[in-house]
Amino acid sequence: MSEHQNIELSTQRIEAFSDGVFAIAITLLILEIRVPPLHGAGESKSLTSALLELWPSYFAYVLSFVMIGIYWANHHYLFRFFNRTDHIFNLLNVFFLMCISFLPFPTAVLGEYITDPDNQRTATTLYALGLLLPAFSWLLVWLYASRHNRLIDTRLDPSFVKFLTRQFMLSNGLYLGAFLASLLSTGVSLAICVGLTLLYLLPPKKPIYRESQL
Amino acid sequence: MSEHQNIELSTQRIEAFSDGVFAIAITLLILEIRVPPLHGAGESKSLTSALLELWPSYFAYVLSFVMIGIYWANHHYLFRFFNRTDHIFNLLNVFFLMCISFLPFPTAVLGEYITDPDNQRTATTLYALGLLLPAFSWLLVWLYASRHNRLIDTRLDPSFVKFLTRQFMLSNGLYLGAFLASLLSTGVSLAICVGLTLLYLLPPKKPIYRESQL
Amino acid sequence: MSEHQNIELSTQRIEAFSDGVFAIAITLLILEIRVPPLHGAGESKSLTSALLELWPSYFAYVLSFVMIGIYWANHHYLFRFFNRTDHIFNLLNVFFLMCISFLPFPTAVLGEYITDPDNQRTATTLYALGLLLPAFSWLLVWLYASRHNRLIDTRLDPSFVKFLTRQFMLSNGLYLGAFLASLLSTGVSLAICVGLTLLYLLPPKKPIYRESQL
Amino acid sequence: MSEHQNIELSTQRIEAFSDGVFAIAITLLILEIRVPPLHGAGESKSLTSALLELWPSYFAYVLSFVMIGIYWANHHYLFRFFNRTDHIFNLLNVFFLMCISFLPFPTAVLGEYITDPDNQRTATTLYALGLLLPAFSWLLVWLYASRHNRLIDTRLDPSFVKFLTRQFMLSNGLYLGAFLASLLSTGVSLAICVGLTLLYLLPPKKPIYRESQL
Repeated sequence: MSEHQNIELSTQRIEAFSDGVFAIAITLLILEIRVPPLHGAGESKSLTSALLELWPSYFAYVLSFVMIGIYWANHHYLFRFFNRTDHIFNLLNVFFLMCISFLPFPTAVLGEYITDPDNQRTATTLYALGLLLPAFSWLLVWLYASRHNRLIDTRLDPSFVKFLTRQFMLSNGLYLGAFLASLLSTGVSLAICVGLTLLYLLPPKKPIYRESQL
Repeated sequence: MSEHQNIELSTQRIEAFSDGVFAIAITLLILEIRVPPLHGAGESKSLTSALLELWPSYFAYVLSFVMIGIYWANHHYLFRFFNRTDHIFNLLNVFFLMCISFLPFPTAVLGEYITDPDNQRTATTLYALGLLLPAFSWLLVWLYASRHNRLIDTRLDPSFVKFLTRQFMLSNGLYLGAFLASLLSTGVSLAICVGLTLLYLLPPKKPIYRESQL
Repeated sequence: MSEHQNIELSTQRIEAFSDGVFAIAITLLILEIRVPPLHGAGESKSLTSALLELWPSYFAYVLSFVMIGIYWANHHYLFRFFNRTDHIFNLLNVFFLMCISFLPFPTAVLGEYITDPDNQRTATTLYALGLLLPAFSWLLVWLYASRHNRLIDTRLDPSFVKFLTRQFMLSNGLYLGAFLASLLSTGVSLAICVGLTLLYLLPPKKPIYRESQL
Repeated sequence: MSEHQNIELSTQRIEAFSDGVFAIAITLLILEIRVPPLHGAGESKSLTSALLELWPSYFAYVLSFVMIGIYWANHHYLFRFFNRTDHIFNLLNVFFLMCISFLPFPTAVLGEYITDPDNQRTATTLYALGLLLPAFSWLLVWLYASRHNRLIDTRLDPSFVKFLTRQFMLSNGLYLGAFLASLLSTGVSLAICVGLTLLYLLPPKKPIYRESQL
């Protein structure tokens, strides 16, 4: 009986738990769109206009849904390169899941305040932070795993590992850019967020294996 | 090691994730039925009458629960004909799940406003749209998969594939009809929605395989 | 390739989906206990007393949690006797899950109104109905499956099948009794509900197989 | 066919169900952080200050997320030592899950009232109780299983079993300490809770097997 198997969770267990969190976080997003009340503060409006005024919530719902969906696909894509886990890897993955689970909150704030001229900048800053956090925590998971031969599939070509590291660092840089841009302009910041999401819709690069493995 | 396996999610993974989203979306529906407050706006009523007045919410709960349940069963029924996945297939499936996850919102709006003469038409329009969206996104998944021999089980008889394509197109037409009818009449639109749901309760057609496969 | 396998969901698939719904419904119960506001309607109270006043919600939480937990265990216990499924079986199981998913609502209503003298009877009636519905829909699942040799494990001794049928019918009778009692007395009705739950905590009867199977 | 297999749930089934509850409870935590309203009770504030004032909610979110994540990891770590289950074991595990699922409520109360001088003590008491309950119910699961040779892996060295028993009892003592301390001082109580959480982040002890097993 291997010494390590006894204190480590298998990657399969972690994937199943992570899948559960992804599926729940992505489905909870709809709860943040509430049925609009029509009578309040002395005014009354039609349901049609109330529903149309919720467009920022629909926009935020779609954007966050796609983001979590992409992270789910990437999580699977990358977990196949991990052979085993250790305690720190598990903790970093829990930290990553904590950031994914947090996303419904900035999504709801963005949906509520993006059309409020006084507060749209703050709402955008929070949302950009909400996207930066999963990117950052994922980078930590990746850096930790890829530096430990024990954890990662050693058949992978080093150039491919470097490519992914650079890609994740670039993502962090761009989300940091969106975060900083939000302090100046709501539009630029959101454009970066939407642009990055569209970029992530492209298919992931095929893995490259060391020649001796072929 | 197959080139494709390395960048594609297995159909099993996608089914497990989709199952999670189905199970969560179907169970979240109940959260949209809130405990009725009895004292508000200067009036007071009994819990009995308050609970009875929630009948539209119960109706919407049952209708949406059955709809999601049917989509779950159909998703399984059809995924067994898919041999593999590719990136675009995955994205279309995420889009389909986004439409399923959206359903609790139109359900809640319908439950709230179906008895409000001024707004019942809008609530019905949104609900018909909420049913049209999963039907439409599912049609996209199906059309994409069935046109690519690489994805679909090639042993299926072309007549069976055509039968399903026609069936999904007809569904879309009928939900579009319910959507358009809602602009004129709440009753007709809801009758189409309920009728289609009852129709879907019929067992699915047995698959037909090419003769050479028998 | 079997004709039936192609249009039927395996019992394993249905169990996995049902498990998801059980796990979600049981965990959603806590959402119905809201953080108590301390300042409202011109009065102010301490958090301690506000939390203590929530005791009916804690009571309802525990009762419903245990009920769903028991149904989950029973669902597994009984699904091992089912060999296969058919379309009507699936629909009945979805109906059963709809009744399980509904339970958070009566639970919340009971927690809110059980201490309100004017409305406690109605709240109890709804709760007893909320417990009767899963018992009734489960009886339908069982009756349908146990009458069709194709679905149930034919090695089971008929006396054992009859025992279970009688047990489920008795449960229905008792919940119906709790429902009717609630029209007269809140206390008697809740006592039946609590008593039945305690009874269900007893271990299930060991299955009996036909002698020829030993 | 084993007599016991027929009335017992496999540990695998229980683990899968427990995983579902863990994943849902951990993801629901975010729902307790609500979008802050800016206009209320005659005052108006900026979104920035409203979001910053929510720091207790973020703190409580992180603490509870890490706690549930640790319990999930420990649950897996320990379930591998269980060979089988029995009815009482199942009931105790459901009781444990009930305590885990309860955690979002004390978390929300702590986030709401930790900065309210009149009520922070009560909020902390409830939170310490919310952490004590899972520790206590887990101790019950462990004591029951470890005293029954039928349930636990008999290859484990008795000294290792005793070590775990002592560790769980110590946890209970410390959470009880945090509970009692909260009656006197909010700070001391929360410090114990945070300190224990940090302690749990350490890797679990490697299991020790009887020498004859090597």
